[in-house]
Amino acid sequence: MIILGIDPGLTCTGWGIVAKSGSRLSHIANGQIRTDAKAAMAARLVELDAALTDVILHHRPDAGAVEEVFVNVNPQSTLKLGQARGVAMLSVARAGLPVAEYPTKVIKKALVGTGGAQKAQVQAMLMVLLPGVKLAGEDAADALAVAVTHANMLGSHH
Amino acid sequence: MIILGIDPGLTCTGWGIVAKSGSRLSHIANGQIRTDAKAAMAARLVELDAALTDVILHHRPDAGAVEEVFVNVNPQSTLKLGQARGVAMLSVARAGLPVAEYPTKVIKKALVGTGGAQKAQVQAMLMVLLPGVKLAGEDAADALAVAVTHANMLGSHH
Repeated sequence: MIILGIDPGLTCTGWGIVAKSGSRLSHIANGQIRTDAKAAMAARLVELDAALTDVILHHRPDAGAVEEVFVNVNPQSTLKLGQARGVAMLSVARAGLPVAEYPTKVIKKALVGTGGAQKAQVQAMLMVLLPGVKLAGEDAADALAVAVTHANMLGSHH
Repeated sequence: MIILGIDPGLTCTGWGIVAKSGSRLSHIANGQIRTDAKAAMAARLVELDAALTDVILHHRPDAGAVEEVFVNVNPQSTLKLGQARGVAMLSVARAGLPVAEYPTKVIKKALVGTGGAQKAQVQAMLMVLLPGVKLAGEDAADALAVAVTHANMLGSHH
């Protein structure tokens, strides 16, 4: 089973793909999609959709999982994040994949054992769980973490 | 020239289409898209995208215009609104249409002459500008108002 994790953002969206075979996890790919900050909002959303759709067509995941975003205190930032998140969820769902959502705390707990884990701890655990992985960046790491969380939640019967 | 106006929302998205010929405006259609509140977020976004894409394929607009949303004090509501808005803008832009954005105040000023106009005043002015129009609801009215605003802003050379 191939799982696509996404950490959505307008400036940078992280994605990460893991394969689950029995209880064995392996890393397939990860990356970050940046949209042109000088472009109009609609054009940036089209960029994000096109890039995510490319990832889906290339890696053919069976399921998607998205991090539940931190709701910013700045309403304009929250609105932008929502726009990117809506597009990311649509791109995955339109491809026919189920989309799971996990709060950040659940992801941290699934990987490190505590909801209050630091980013560095999550990344260190990714290195252990997915030997040889090269992280494209922080957002890609967060995306792999949500993919791993979803793989664990699915149980070992997949 | 055919203009599609959209007032995005997760529960209800209004849409309205006007035709501009010289300085003459006419009403083509308006409606509201409701998504199933019991469905998962990704499924609701797919519903919204599919319904808007149907409207676009049916009416073949040349341009889109979206109301800049009121940023709610409740961050979770703002995030949901952002998700619906991101999908609405993507649906229009993916169809190859330019997407303009207008703040509510600019729309009210364009229609009624003052940025502080009431909804009822905007709707009354729509009845005058688009004779015979039947409004599908408040969100459809808001969508027609943004379409009319964009038509006015484009000047009479279209």
